[in-house]
Amino acid sequence: MPQKYVDVDTLKYMLYDVHNLEGILSRKRFQDHDKGSLDMFLDSVKEFADRELFPYFKEMDENPAYHKDGKVFVHDQVKTMMYKGGELGLISAPFDYEDGGLQIPLMTQTAAYYVLDAANNHLPGYAALTSGAAELIIHFGNDQLKETYVSKMLNGIWGGTMCLTEPQAGSSLSDVITKAIPTENDYYHISGQKIFISGGDNNFIENVVHLVLARIEGAPKGTKGISLFVVPKNRPIENGSLAWNDVTTVADFQKLGQKGYCTTHLGFGDKEDCRGWLVGEPNKGLHYMFLMMNAARIAVGRGASAIASAAYYASLEYANERPQGRKLSSDGKKNPDEKQTLIINHPDVRRMLLQQKSIVEGTMSLVMLAAQYYDLIETAESPEEKEKYHLLLEVIIPIVKTHPSEAGLQAVNAGLQTLGGYGFCEDYILQQYYRDIRIFSIYEGTTGIQSQDLLGRKVPMQNGKALELLSAEIMKTLQEASQIESLQSYAKVLGEKLQLTQKVLGHLMPYAMKGNYERFLADASVFMEFMSIVLMSWTWLELGVNAAKAIENGGNYSKEFYESKLHTMKYYYTYELPKTSGLSEILLNSESLTIKKENEPII
Amino acid sequence: MPQKYVDVDTLKYMLYDVHNLEGILSRKRFQDHDKGSLDMFLDSVKEFADRELFPYFKEMDENPAYHKDGKVFVHDQVKTMMYKGGELGLISAPFDYEDGGLQIPLMTQTAAYYVLDAANNHLPGYAALTSGAAELIIHFGNDQLKETYVSKMLNGIWGGTMCLTEPQAGSSLSDVITKAIPTENDYYHISGQKIFISGGDNNFIENVVHLVLARIEGAPKGTKGISLFVVPKNRPIENGSLAWNDVTTVADFQKLGQKGYCTTHLGFGDKEDCRGWLVGEPNKGLHYMFLMMNAARIAVGRGASAIASAAYYASLEYANERPQGRKLSSDGKKNPDEKQTLIINHPDVRRMLLQQKSIVEGTMSLVMLAAQYYDLIETAESPEEKEKYHLLLEVIIPIVKTHPSEAGLQAVNAGLQTLGGYGFCEDYILQQYYRDIRIFSIYEGTTGIQSQDLLGRKVPMQNGKALELLSAEIMKTLQEASQIESLQSYAKVLGEKLQLTQKVLGHLMPYAMKGNYERFLADASVFMEFMSIVLMSWTWLELGVNAAKAIENGGNYSKEFYESKLHTMKYYYTYELPKTSGLSEILLNSESLTIKKENEPII
Repeated sequence: MPQKYVDVDTLKYMLYDVHNLEGILSRKRFQDHDKGSLDMFLDSVKEFADRELFPYFKEMDENPAYHKDGKVFVHDQVKTMMYKGGELGLISAPFDYEDGGLQIPLMTQTAAYYVLDAANNHLPGYAALTSGAAELIIHFGNDQLKETYVSKMLNGIWGGTMCLTEPQAGSSLSDVITKAIPTENDYYHISGQKIFISGGDNNFIENVVHLVLARIEGAPKGTKGISLFVVPKNRPIENGSLAWNDVTTVADFQKLGQKGYCTTHLGFGDKEDCRGWLVGEPNKGLHYMFLMMNAARIAVGRGASAIASAAYYASLEYANERPQGRKLSSDGKKNPDEKQTLIINHPDVRRMLLQQKSIVEGTMSLVMLAAQYYDLIETAESPEEKEKYHLLLEVIIPIVKTHPSEAGLQAVNAGLQTLGGYGFCEDYILQQYYRDIRIFSIYEGTTGIQSQDLLGRKVPMQNGKALELLSAEIMKTLQEASQIESLQSYAKVLGEKLQLTQKVLGHLMPYAMKGNYERFLADASVFMEFMSIVLMSWTWLELGVNAAKAIENGGNYSKEFYESKLHTMKYYYTYELPKTSGLSEILLNSESLTIKKENEPII
Repeated sequence: MPQKYVDVDTLKYMLYDVHNLEGILSRKRFQDHDKGSLDMFLDSVKEFADRELFPYFKEMDENPAYHKDGKVFVHDQVKTMMYKGGELGLISAPFDYEDGGLQIPLMTQTAAYYVLDAANNHLPGYAALTSGAAELIIHFGNDQLKETYVSKMLNGIWGGTMCLTEPQAGSSLSDVITKAIPTENDYYHISGQKIFISGGDNNFIENVVHLVLARIEGAPKGTKGISLFVVPKNRPIENGSLAWNDVTTVADFQKLGQKGYCTTHLGFGDKEDCRGWLVGEPNKGLHYMFLMMNAARIAVGRGASAIASAAYYASLEYANERPQGRKLSSDGKKNPDEKQTLIINHPDVRRMLLQQKSIVEGTMSLVMLAAQYYDLIETAESPEEKEKYHLLLEVIIPIVKTHPSEAGLQAVNAGLQTLGGYGFCEDYILQQYYRDIRIFSIYEGTTGIQSQDLLGRKVPMQNGKALELLSAEIMKTLQEASQIESLQSYAKVLGEKLQLTQKVLGHLMPYAMKGNYERFLADASVFMEFMSIVLMSWTWLELGVNAAKAIENGGNYSKEFYESKLHTMKYYYTYELPKTSGLSEILLNSESLTIKKENEPII
């Protein structure tokens, strides 16, 4: 196994030097924290990840979770993740003190989970989903639900899940048919099937608390008739013990990757004795779930970026150790008498490493930006401020979920290629990252669905106000960069790409205005890629400005650290940003080749 | 399992309608064959693949080849592939009658193996490598070697391998150190280690004949001192039986994919009793090996394209059966009262399917073009003709190897995405294609190495003559397309891209002329992608011309068949060709960010 999976310096640099966590810490909510205490938290998480996560990464892949006798058996380390992770505060971190939380900013929480995901992406989800399920109960549940469930969940004694997907509905939640039938008591009878439930069961935790989307008998069709229920695997009964709540584990999906992170098929109410407790008001389930969705989408982007980080350091380590081939001399030949060179000295290998680094650190910065917006919303000091950061978060969130997943896969792919034939072998770890990361462009709304959200909802929202605010933020960076001579040409290019964005939207929006939504959104995935690269270019310019200033005025890190950031920025502008030219050509075309017409040729 | 993995109609269309196999069949060498007999051969191969390969595809993945007690145990179906495949002529097909062959054109052989690779890519390699090893003996070995080995190999009784790679050398063959020490007899003593030897051993075949690159004691350093040896696992002894030849199977690499196709680590001469017989002259080993390399590189491109084909049909079948979501109405909303639609009706899904189809059929055509050039060289009626097709093959061969591997992975990735969460599950086959295809950009020279070959050797060869010939071929298609009104705009775009190619080379060549080879080749992989898309665009225009004419004048296939080709051509020009804009921007930049400088920032 390689030694390094994340650069903690870069992570802290993102938090403090780039995305101003200290500004967040000045807010009242976080008054008990400062850089020192949060760094200690992060360092203890890193130490935990080094000791309890990273060493089990390969082992968990080789010993997948499995289903037997109605139970899911997971790796023992899941227990450590839940119990010790619970003790460390990894489940409770973001919550209010009064709910048992630590009132830690999402930025810090995100950095902590970035480390965990990079160390071993099969484990953190067990804690993170428990945290998410607890959050729904805390925000929308009544006191009884809170008292019954929250404390055990925050301590990792009980797990938690989100149960959305059903076999017949897939991503289309309006087709959810799980039923909730009111009773004379405080609970409903739940019946139905849920699939793809991460962390849905395991062999040692005494209870799993499912947050289930279901339809109360007689509710309206579509997404307006969906309610949210707490449905524990085992229900607490009067004497403090637990009784089975008729939740059956039907199967554990065997997968390409994340094999240690179980993905279950659950049945509710086979014996007509499954009880569910309504969370909040009827028919508002999807609304509640979606209020949690931004944090969940930041988490997906974070996980993908973190896997790409681990893959990057694994391939970097290999490239620094593996001798092969020789430098070309001035006649284009190689001299066999010369000593072999390390492969890191070959330009094509450096290109693949720089590609990885630019994606890893650029997406890390994007994820942190989203977490920063999130914290600014949570602690906003005025409704205007809240609204501003809300709009900014809304417009970037589909990109923050999608781009690390899509570009992260390209990065991992380049990492695998760096190892040549060894990259394809199980003795090396790259092939596992290549498999694990593949789920991220599917999780929490596929790339196609995120792209429709970006172009179809976020860009037009409030007459384009979110995008206007985003452009204003980008312009600020452009202006700063224009003050620094060495960055002027990059600022100019990004300015041109902003104008190109306007041109693209000027071409696409009329389709929507004429009611041709299908055509408007037909190339949404292409727009997603285009906008992602624009956003990444902004991010890299921001990193460039920061690094250039630090080289000029001094900073917390070494000169090499900042020079490396500047170099990677140049790489991004030279090798990645030009893709927007081709993407905008696609977006500006007037063909409609992907919309089915009558007598459409077979495809 | 899905039902379809290849479209035999499209394959035959490529052979006869697009790449003029009948022209090849008019050559003397192939006088015993005609379309009827070769179609029968292909049909029997398809029937063999349906019955003996496709049904075992998943099973071979789930039961990988493994090493135990010094042997490699493979799936029983390997035996069928060798013996029955041998009977069918799959090993002997390309060879002369006098060597036991069938004198079948490489085009037909390529189509046959395309079917086999698409059905189950874990199996055909056993036969194909045996064929390749036999070819080296037939072409360069003495009569004794031919008599001893060829017949048993062509019948699939004995296997064959190519042993190039060594642990310390990787892709750098000039660092091969396996030793050959002359003896007083007709053999040498061989000692050394070889890794990544496909089909290197198995538990039932009585012998494996290794074609080994080694260095005769005292030979020059570098690639000029490498010789080729026949080193059987068991050597034939006087009474017609076999004696172990001190070839040890050290290990079987466990891999990300192609798990049923063993990849061995072999040791030669541990007991100082490993005998090798020189093939041809000393120090010409690499030369001989490279004469075989074009066919091997066509085979890699073919395999990758075939896997992408199988993945395409699997995802197409799913998209045609899976209902999910609804069409957007003119207010951008969905009506939950409406019935769910099949996902193939969503533009984003159609985009992913068209992307796959354009890559699958475009690369299939490229592979067939290379096979056509190969056959034209083999049967050339004049030295000029031979030289022309030799140059054409040389310049396209790195692309034919690389582009199906790289774009094929993108296609498989889109296929997996089409299935959403199910694509990530082992119950569906897409995840296996995603793993299997990943090796193709590493096999037979990685993408980086192929790219250096393309830009560093093939483009400059004979002062750019190969590229000139290729441009002339493309111009022919352009002119034909210009005669067809509906294709004129596409012809125009391709013409512009040809000019762009000249501009790019005008920027790059001066680096080489000034002796700065490192900078000249630094972006070779980017140039590879650029040229690949230009070539694919040519291919698609050719398919477009062919289809448009057939729609006008009638052809062997249905109107829908031709319309689908035209539609896919339009897709390629609208969604894939524009990538060349960004790629050319990269190539035209003057930065040198990937070349290591002194005091280079850490990366």
